[in-house]
Formats: sequence, C-alpha cells, structure tokens
Amino acid sequence: MSRIAPAEPWVVREIGLPEGEGAMRQAESLFALANGHIGLRGNLDEPEPRGMPGTYLNSLFEERDLTYPEAGFAFPERTETIVNAPNGKPITLTVGGEPFDVRTGELRRHERVLDLRAGTLTREVEWVSPRGVEMRLRSVRVVSFQRPSVAAIRYSVEADAELRVDSDLVVNEEQPPADDDPRASAVIRDPFEPVFHDRDLLVHRTRRSGITVAVAVTHVGADGELVTGPDRIRWTATAPGSITFDKIFAYGWDGLDQRDNARAERDAAARAGFDELLAEQRQYLDDFWAYADVEMDGDDQVQQGTRFGLFHVLQAGAQAGPHPIPSKGLTGNGYDGHTLWDNESYVLPVLTYTHPACVGQALRWRHSTLDHARERARELKLDGAAFPWRTISGPECSGYWPAGTAALHINADIADAVLRYHAATGDDEFMREAGDELIAETARLWRKVSYFDEEGVAHIAGVTGPDEYTALMDDNVFTNLMARRNLRAAALDEVSEHIADRLAVPYDERRGVHEQAAGFTRLDEWKSFAGEDYPLMLHHHYLNLYRKQVVKQADLVLAMAMCGDEFTPEEKRRNFEYYEARTVRDSSLSAPVQAVLAAELGHLSLAYAYLTEAALLDLRAGGESGGDGLHIAACAGSWIAVVMGFGGLRDTGGTLSLSPRIPPRLTRLQFRLRWRGTGLRVTVTPETVTYQADGPISFQHYGEDVTLNDGEVSFKLDPIEDLPAPPTPRPPGEVE
Amino acid sequence: MSRIAPAEPWVVREIGLPEGEGAMRQAESLFALANGHIGLRGNLDEPEPRGMPGTYLNSLFEERDLTYPEAGFAFPERTETIVNAPNGKPITLTVGGEPFDVRTGELRRHERVLDLRAGTLTREVEWVSPRGVEMRLRSVRVVSFQRPSVAAIRYSVEADAELRVDSDLVVNEEQPPADDDPRASAVIRDPFEPVFHDRDLLVHRTRRSGITVAVAVTHVGADGELVTGPDRIRWTATAPGSITFDKIFAYGWDGLDQRDNARAERDAAARAGFDELLAEQRQYLDDFWAYADVEMDGDDQVQQGTRFGLFHVLQAGAQAGPHPIPSKGLTGNGYDGHTLWDNESYVLPVLTYTHPACVGQALRWRHSTLDHARERARELKLDGAAFPWRTISGPECSGYWPAGTAALHINADIADAVLRYHAATGDDEFMREAGDELIAETARLWRKVSYFDEEGVAHIAGVTGPDEYTALMDDNVFTNLMARRNLRAAALDEVSEHIADRLAVPYDERRGVHEQAAGFTRLDEWKSFAGEDYPLMLHHHYLNLYRKQVVKQADLVLAMAMCGDEFTPEEKRRNFEYYEARTVRDSSLSAPVQAVLAAELGHLSLAYAYLTEAALLDLRAGGESGGDGLHIAACAGSWIAVVMGFGGLRDTGGTLSLSPRIPPRLTRLQFRLRWRGTGLRVTVTPETVTYQADGPISFQHYGEDVTLNDGEVSFKLDPIEDLPAPPTPRPPGEVE
Repeated sequence: MSRIAPAEPWVVREIGLPEGEGAMRQAESLFALANGHIGLRGNLDEPEPRGMPGTYLNSLFEERDLTYPEAGFAFPERTETIVNAPNGKPITLTVGGEPFDVRTGELRRHERVLDLRAGTLTREVEWVSPRGVEMRLRSVRVVSFQRPSVAAIRYSVEADAELRVDSDLVVNEEQPPADDDPRASAVIRDPFEPVFHDRDLLVHRTRRSGITVAVAVTHVGADGELVTGPDRIRWTATAPGSITFDKIFAYGWDGLDQRDNARAERDAAARAGFDELLAEQRQYLDDFWAYADVEMDGDDQVQQGTRFGLFHVLQAGAQAGPHPIPSKGLTGNGYDGHTLWDNESYVLPVLTYTHPACVGQALRWRHSTLDHARERARELKLDGAAFPWRTISGPECSGYWPAGTAALHINADIADAVLRYHAATGDDEFMREAGDELIAETARLWRKVSYFDEEGVAHIAGVTGPDEYTALMDDNVFTNLMARRNLRAAALDEVSEHIADRLAVPYDERRGVHEQAAGFTRLDEWKSFAGEDYPLMLHHHYLNLYRKQVVKQADLVLAMAMCGDEFTPEEKRRNFEYYEARTVRDSSLSAPVQAVLAAELGHLSLAYAYLTEAALLDLRAGGESGGDGLHIAACAGSWIAVVMGFGGLRDTGGTLSLSPRIPPRLTRLQFRLRWRGTGLRVTVTPETVTYQADGPISFQHYGEDVTLNDGEVSFKLDPIEDLPAPPTPRPPGEVE
Repeated sequence: MSRIAPAEPWVVREIGLPEGEGAMRQAESLFALANGHIGLRGNLDEPEPRGMPGTYLNSLFEERDLTYPEAGFAFPERTETIVNAPNGKPITLTVGGEPFDVRTGELRRHERVLDLRAGTLTREVEWVSPRGVEMRLRSVRVVSFQRPSVAAIRYSVEADAELRVDSDLVVNEEQPPADDDPRASAVIRDPFEPVFHDRDLLVHRTRRSGITVAVAVTHVGADGELVTGPDRIRWTATAPGSITFDKIFAYGWDGLDQRDNARAERDAAARAGFDELLAEQRQYLDDFWAYADVEMDGDDQVQQGTRFGLFHVLQAGAQAGPHPIPSKGLTGNGYDGHTLWDNESYVLPVLTYTHPACVGQALRWRHSTLDHARERARELKLDGAAFPWRTISGPECSGYWPAGTAALHINADIADAVLRYHAATGDDEFMREAGDELIAETARLWRKVSYFDEEGVAHIAGVTGPDEYTALMDDNVFTNLMARRNLRAAALDEVSEHIADRLAVPYDERRGVHEQAAGFTRLDEWKSFAGEDYPLMLHHHYLNLYRKQVVKQADLVLAMAMCGDEFTPEEKRRNFEYYEARTVRDSSLSAPVQAVLAAELGHLSLAYAYLTEAALLDLRAGGESGGDGLHIAACAGSWIAVVMGFGGLRDTGGTLSLSPRIPPRLTRLQFRLRWRGTGLRVTVTPETVTYQADGPISFQHYGEDVTLNDGEVSFKLDPIEDLPAPPTPRPPGEVE
C-alpha cells in the first residue's frame, strides 16, 4: 500500500515511505516526471532503496530477438525494448561521515509532493543519523515542458555536521530482474557501450540498435570536484552545516550533434537558472489547465485523481514530438515501452480537446512509420498499410499474433484519431502532409481484407477486436464499424464505398442484441464468476477464455461509444445490459468506456463508479499494477468518463455534440475543451448547464444547434432518473 | 535428387552417392534401420561425408525450456527433444596409409540395398585410392527386431595393401545446425555427461532429463586393440590384404541395470553370431509380411513404395514397447522426436490389421501417461484427460497452442484407436487394464467442454481440427463426430449420451455441403492458387490462411473416411467435390485420406494418383522433405489408400466391412489383414474378388454378411465406372 495522503485539489502528497519493493515501484511511477521527451521515475535522490531505477528518453531503445517455440511466416523476429538511459538523479549524501539512508537512523519526516500546477516533485526529509545528528533535506525535481531535453534538481541540506554530496550521472545501472507477468517488460542489461567522455559529458551508444545518446551535466551554486569515467560523472562537494546546489542535466539523442545539443541545452538552462525553469514550468501548466481542467464539487478523491490523470497524459504527450507516446508514457518500462492502440483511441482524443498541438505531432509520428506499415501489409499479403500492434520505431513487435497482428482495428483507430484531430482543429496542413495519406493507406487494407458473400454482405473474417478474451472471430462489430468510417473517409473508389455500406454488423435476433463478433452470443457462458481470481488470463488458458462469452474489456460497448450513430437507443440499452453481465474489466481500458455508455443510458451512479475506478486506478487502487509504469490510457480514461460520459461529448461526423448531465454524487461539474481554436467551459449543476466560450464556436446541446461568440449561454436540464446498474460479475467501486 | 534405382519388388537400391547434403540426408532417412526401440540413420560407415548423423533410442530425450515472446497461462514451459544417442556406426578405414573417403580417389561402384525381407542395409563399394590402390568393401547392417537393444554390422574389406580399421563408439557427436523451418527439430549439443567407462562399455547421462544410457560393444572375427575414453571407444585392427569382422553393440537405457542389460544383450547377440541375427531377422519379417503384404500387378513403383512404407511402419512400431511411436519413427529428429495424433489415426490402424501386438503396447504407453493428461486437463479447467498434441514422455510440448493444445481431437483419436484395436483383436485384458480407462477419461473431457444452446443442440467451440490452415473454430465436424463416438463408447452417464446425440454437425444448406467447422463455407475463397509456392504456410501468415477457405489437409474428408455412417452417399459426393477444390495437401497426411474417399466415390484413377503420391512421397518425390526423418504416417498412408481405399475396409461399430475395387492401372491387387486372430487374404481383379482365410472370420462384402472358416470364397465384381477427378488446386501425380 502506498502512503498517499488524503486528497488535495492540486497536489499528490505521500507521507512516509512506501513499504516494500512493490509499493516503492508503484510510488516511483506515480511520482514520475516527464515531458514526453524525457522521463524520470520518482526514485529517491539516494540510489537506495529503490524499486526500479528508471530514466527514459523517448525512443531510446535496444533491439532484442524474438524466438518462438514454433514460429510462423512473418512472425516478427525482432523487438524493441526501452532502456534505462543515463541517469542524472542519484545524489548520495554523507552527514558527518554517516551515509544518509532512509532505512537507517530515525526518519522523523519524509514527505513527497507532486504539484500538478507547478510541475515539480518536492521532497522534504527530517532525519536523525544513527549517531544522533539531525539533518533536514529538501529537493525539488523538474523535467521541463518548455525545454524538452532538460531536467534539474535543486538539493538543499542542513545539519550540524560536515556534509558531503556525491552527485552522479551514471550509465548501465544495475536493474532488478524481469517479472514473470507476460505484460511486463524484458530487461536489457548494460545496453550502452561508451563512445566518449569529457569532464561533464558522457556519450554512449546502444550496442545493437546503435542509438547515440549524449548527456551533459552541471552543478550550480556550490563548488565541487568532478571525476569522470566512461560510465559515470561524479561531482563531489563538501560543506560544513549546509549546502544548496542545482543539478542541471540535458540529453541529446535525436538527430545529429547529440553532444553539442546536450551541452547547449544544459548551458541555456543553467544560464536561465533553476528559478526560471520553475517559472516556465508553471506558465506551461497554467496554459494547459486553462483548457483542460475538470472541477468536481463533492468528491475530492476523484477530483484529484482526474487531475492527476490529466497531468500524466500531458507528461506523456507534451513533447513526444517526432516520437510515439508509449502506453506507459515515460513512467516505466512496462510493455517494453511500446505504443499500442490505446494511444490513438484513449490518449489522443483527450489531448485533441485539451492540448491539440501534440496530437498533430503524434500522428505525424505514425505517418513517419508508413514505410514499415506498408512493408508489413505486403508481408501479410494485404494492401496499403498494416500498422503494428506494438512498436517503438515502427516495425511490428508483437509476439503473440492472435492478440497482436490479428487486431487489425489499430488501422481504423489511427484513421479515426486523424479525423477527430482534423475536425477539432481544422489543421488542413496536417491533412495534406500526413493525415490524408494515413487515411487512404489504412483504408486500402480494409478494402483488401474484406470480401462479399453471395448475398452482397461484406465481411472481415478472422480478426481480433479490443476484447482480448476473444480472438480470431469474424465480423467484430467494433472493427467493422471503424473500418466503415475509415473507408468512407478515404473514399478510395466505388468498391470501397460499397464495402463500407455493406459491412456486416452481426445481430442476434433471438437475444435482441448485437454480437460482439459473429457467433459470440451463441458461445458457452462462463457460468460462474464467483470465486474467480482476476485477471482471468493469469489463471485460465486462452483456450478456455476464447471459447466462452467472457469479455476482458469493452468491445461492443466501445463500438457504441465510438460509433453511437450506428445503434438505436433501445439497442444500446439492451446491448449494454448484455455485455455488462459478461465483462470482467481485466483491462484498465474498460471502465472509462463503460462509464460513457452508462452515463448515456442514465445509469449515472454506475457511470460515476466506473469513473471512480479509472480515476483512482494507479493512484489509490491499492494494487501495485503500475509499478512498471502508469496506465496512461486509464489516466486519459477519467477525462473520457467525465467529458464523453457526463458531458456527453460526441464527435462522429466532425460535429461537436454535448449532452451534459451530473451524477448524484456531485453538486457541480465543470470541464473545458478546445474546438477549432476556441476554448469552451461547460459547467453542469443538477439544474443547469452553462457554456462559456472565449471565441466563436458552434456545437449541439442535446441535439440542438448552439452558436456562441465569446460569451456564455445556459440551459435548464431536465432531471435524468438514475437507473440501477445492471448485473455485472465485478461491480466497480471495490477500490478506495 | 536421390539415385534410387528402378523399382524392384523387395529391395530399395541406391546406385552411386546422393549429390549434396540434402540428398544425403534424405537417403540417410530412407536407409534408416530401426525396430521401434533403437534406430540408426543410414549414414555411411565412414563418419564423412554425412548429412546428419543419427542414432536414436526411443524416449532418450533431453529437456529444453520453451520461451515465448508473450507467454500465456499454461503455455508449456518445457519440451522434450530426441537426442543423437551414442553412435556405434562409425568405421574409418585406411588403405595402405590412405584414408578411405568416397569423395577422393575413384569411386567405381557404390551401391546400397535396403532389403525389405531380410531387414538389412547392405553396402558394396569398389574404390581406387588416390595412389591407385583398388579396394572392395562390403558392409551389412542390421537392427534386430528380435533383440530390441541390439544392432550389428558385418564389415569386409579387400585390397592389395595394408588395411587399418578404426571402429568407433562415439558420444556427443558434432551435429549440423538446425533448420529454419518451424517443423524442424531443435539441436541439442553435447547432451550427455559421462558417468562411467570401461574398456567396452560407456555409460552417460543426459544433463537435464537425467536419463542414463549404457552402450556395450564387441568386435568379433578379427583381432584389434581397444582404446577407451569417457566419450569414445575405439577398436583398431590392422591386416594385410583383407579383413572381415562383426561389430555388435547393444544399449541399455530403460529401467534399471542399464550396464548389465547392455552387456548381457551384446554378449547374447555375439554368442548367437551375426548369421543367426540375420536368420532371426528374416524370420521376423516373414511373419510380418504373411499378414501385411500388398501385391499390385501393373505398377512396380507403387508396389515397391507401398512395401517400403509398410516396412518403415513396422520399423517404427515393432518394439516401441513401453514408449511412443514418434511421427518420424526413429529415422530422424524431425518434430523433435515427438509423437502426434497421426500415430493413433494413421499408424496404429495399419498396425492393428497387420501387426496388432505392437498396437496394444503403443496404447498402453498412452495409458501410462494418463497422469500427465489428467494434470493437463486440470490446468485447462477441463475434466478427465487432455492428451498432449506432441510429446515424448507425456507432458504437452506444443509451443503454438492454436494448432496444438486447441486440437482437442487428439483425445478422440486415441479413444478411436482403442476401439479399433479391441474390435480387431478382442483383447479384453487390454481393455480392462488400459483401454476402458482411456475411453472414459478422454470422454470426460468432451462432456466438460461441450455445452448446449437453448435449442438443445450441443456444441464444442474454439477448437482446431485436423486442417491446420484453420484454427479455433466452432463445431469442427471431424472433432464433433469423433467426440460423439468417444462419448458413446464411454457411456459415462445420461448427460454424456445426450451430448453425443445432440452434437452439432454444421451443414450449409445454400451450398448443400457440410461445413468443415461452423461458418467455414462462408469464409472468403483463396481465389487464385495459380503461382503459389507450397507449402503455403512458409509464404503466408496464419492471419491470411485462417481467414480463408483453404485447407491444408483432409479434415471434413477425414471425417467422412472415419465416420462414413454419418453421411449419405450424396452428401459424400458433394462434400468431396467441394473440399477437393480447396485442399492444397501441404500435409503428407492428406493424400491417403483423399484416396480413400475418391475410391469410395468411384474416382478410381484419382484415388490411385493419391495412393501414388503417398507411396512415393519419401522414396521418389524428388524433394528432400524427409531429410530429418521419414513421414511414418505417410508410409502408413499407402496401406490406408490401398486397403481402406480400394479394399473399402471400414470398421465403424466394430464390424469388418470390405468393398473391394481395383483401379484401371492395376490388373490384380492383393492385400492381407488380420481380424481376431484370423488372417484374411483379399485378391481383387477387374472381375472378381477372392477372400482366403486361415481361420474362422465374419465380415461384410459390399454390405452382405460373409462367414468363412479356413477356406476361400469368390464374388463377381460389378464394374465401377471411373469417374473424372473434380477440380483441385494441386492435382496429384506431379511426383515421379
């Protein structure tokens, strides 16, 4: 269990130390600082104790061979794994000859604060050494949003003793062993070979992928001695009674001139000074929250969790720039640092409406990998592009194809993110340079993979939808509806439009519900969920999972959230009830989507319970599942649950549509978004909804057109009856 | 290309040497000698040149870890790989100081003969050394059917020079590297650690699986010197002008007292002498052929190929005793030396009617692995036993579960082999001791995995049938019909009988054909087979194969062969035509079954073409696909095509039924079989069929009951019109 303090609106506070390695790792993820370009896990300043050290540079990866007990044609033979980059965090302190270690002496106070507006991690320590020397330490850590290559630490100590500080920049740190969990990352030991070192600069190269990384450091505010070796720069300072210094380090690994860039960025940051870095950081975040903040009166925990999630979404995406946004952001090495479909389907929608500049960048990154995706399509005997299920630099890195390569929907997810971004921003230049080609190339795959039966119905067979407890099915509804949208947007030719019009959407007449995929509703039932250990995938063979009606995560329900216009309200109601009874939420991607449909259908308390689950998952869920990195898509999920759920935001067809409602638990809910350059603030109370715009905007309120021009308008809300939750095997709200 | 001479009735003759390593490996498989207990690949006497050295002891395996890029619950973590056992074959010859090497000097004659009645491999060489010394060598190799642990070589040389022979017993030979083909075996280097050595005995143990193997050798007929080390015994003899000696070696690795057993078997064989070993061998084979031979007038090649196949089936099964019969027999390390379903479905049916004693043993081996299968069933949350898709000692060793663990039909295949063996032999003791329990435990799995829909139809979902180009489908017809038979035979309770009665058999009303599995006939067509490279699995991702109507191997057609009473003649006709058009025969298991149905339906020339393909596959097909071992099931396939195909043998329900017919190519066809202790000889000409029995027997001739008592009866045959072959993407008969 972490020792996270009671919720405060804008900070996450930890009092005391996490107990045990698992809790330590979890806290390191929660307190990670990142800007999308570089990321520092929330390790202590001292090298020990630690859960898992982690410094990540976006797309700094090593390659590994994938070997299969029984390989098949075009199974990927190579994967990419994010590596622990040169680490500038460690600062070892000696107090009167005694090493400072939180596990020794008396720890009178240990408090860490993640400040969501300041963008800093602050640590305050009061410690008495084994020999009785009192010491006070304060450190402030920042990873600059404004200066993507720069991180800095202000470190202050006071004690009635001689102080010695050894501040390190260290390469090829020892790593803890990999977990047995198949979702964990591989661990690559000693990934770097030294290339060059100077007194304040190290240059290394990854041994196989051949990526060169330079890191430059400086220490400001105190005098010290530098000792530099190939794998370590150590700055040592001694002082009687007190010392304060700023450690500023910068990386270069992108493009050419890594050394010069690292040095120049470090020097510019040092010239600006630590206080200026903090000021820039706050300014950047003020700008972010102005269009992203969510206010919830009545639930401090969910309020905090939602902001915490948005903060980490920003940290994952802000300066990802020419690189992908990994599923764990830069908070851990989970999923090997890969990006998966949840980026386009969960993270980018949130950023599209809150911080759109980085969405264009993220999609340009996808575009930059088109040659890999075209080559993969050729390998699969398909047309156009086949985007990878998981990757860092573009090639398919999935080693279990039934839940990887077979999930062709990644193509439509990318196209949908392009359409959404364009609709919300009007960024025509992006479309000309990247978006149009992404849509066309993804659509060509659907045209090739579809076929008509003799009744003229089009089908997509043998694919896997979002639900990973079902695989290789025909006519997955989510896939088919998203492919339809993709095909229509591309408008390649008459054949593709005909396919789009005729793609099957399996429906079970007897049960009066849509089939997640053809035949799904005729499979065996799981029968008894009582006594099951979750996640089921760690206790059941896929043989057992695939052949039954058990749903890992929203699939047909996601189809209803993303393509709501393809279903009638009555269909939605019946489908929701049916799939609620069979969905175990073994994926963190599920609850936010269930929240959206629950809110739409009037199960307001249920929707709120799912929102709560999403908002508190990593922060307070009690587990340690985020130890190898936060679930960034689940972080985005809170916003999705709030804004798509209670705000009723829908954007199908390029129209912004809102149908706000408020759950019984809250007295007031406010959210913000951007639409074509205009900021919109939506305030919902049980009686009214008020829209405030900072520029011209058109949207629909419960289906009625509204146009605002830098002003506000209010509507009375009809009361919505809070319907009871339909039965589900794992009711939400077990968290807290 | 091998240099196999024109067909002779009872021998396979090679003239000259195979060209290239691939052809060398192929010839080593063809000329392998084995008795089911030990097997020697047909390597030359000299260690070089060689394709792949190979000496195999049944179930002498090493363990390997299976690692997965993305593992799943209950994926096997360990596999077993047959290892190259201590090798007693190498004999190095020096002629007047010049080493004998077929690649040097002048090879005037090199001929090898596999004698199918003598059970020997004879080699005759005339060679002139680089310096012009003429040499004649003759060696005869035998692996004793009567003495399962014993092999022997008689080696004779003449030359006008001083001769030196170094005869080795060698352990941990160097092995060629593994192939990239996923069907190939892993190579384990240096599998043995030495335990003990004596002057004429070596004892080793596999490093991980911990199996102890002892091998003892003696040389008779000439004087020599022994030099013994931990990994080698070398016997060296010199003689002027000529030398002849017998090398006799014996293994012990089963049970206790390996050393004593190896020594005792060697000594007993040496006492009997080489000539007696040959006499015993011929007697054993005379007894075999008396009940197994097939005579075909009109086609010497297929005649030879069929006998060659039967010989290798016997070599695979004769003394397999308490161990499994591997898919490659003991002729190579393909499939890691595993046994798969083709043992019960192809090999055991042939042995049941020709050499039934070893079938009881083979099924007792299955029974001995029941605890592994029960444990696997528990892992899979099923009941009873879940037999492994591939194994040596019992645990599941399949590393690709969609075409491994998901092929639950292995359970029914085993039960069916039990039923057939019991019906054909009346071996009630076997049933009490093993058979009944096998049938009950396999049936419990079907009872658990089946479920009823609301119309009361029972289903088995998410399994893979024999066709490995389709996976994880619902209601595979073959699986369901075989499960039905299994359930009925077990008669566990009312529920299981109800399941058996109501199991779905998917039928496509529109096309008027059965669906291989539910929905199969509505999948996309492959569309164009022209220009494809076979096997398709080496050129297409499973994604592409699974989602289309392309069939690797007989599946629905196998269902019609094994469960013919479940289909009307008209259904068989339509189904056969439909699946012929979609079957590419990328498995050697396909042609024999297609032959059976083609013969039944009157496509006599087509059936003969499939028989030809099966009979010549390894012997003359021109490829080198048998380089890592012969396809023993395809060897059995010739008999299946002849006796189930042209003989019309059916045994559903425990009744022997025959409907003989003869293809236009042949003037006379004779086959033999055993039924409950009585030998039956069936002679077919275009006009008549004659049955000769050596005891009492009852059977059906074209549905009419016939009873014979040690006599013969003839029937006139109505002429059968030879129907044209329906279209198929890969017509048979490209071989030859």
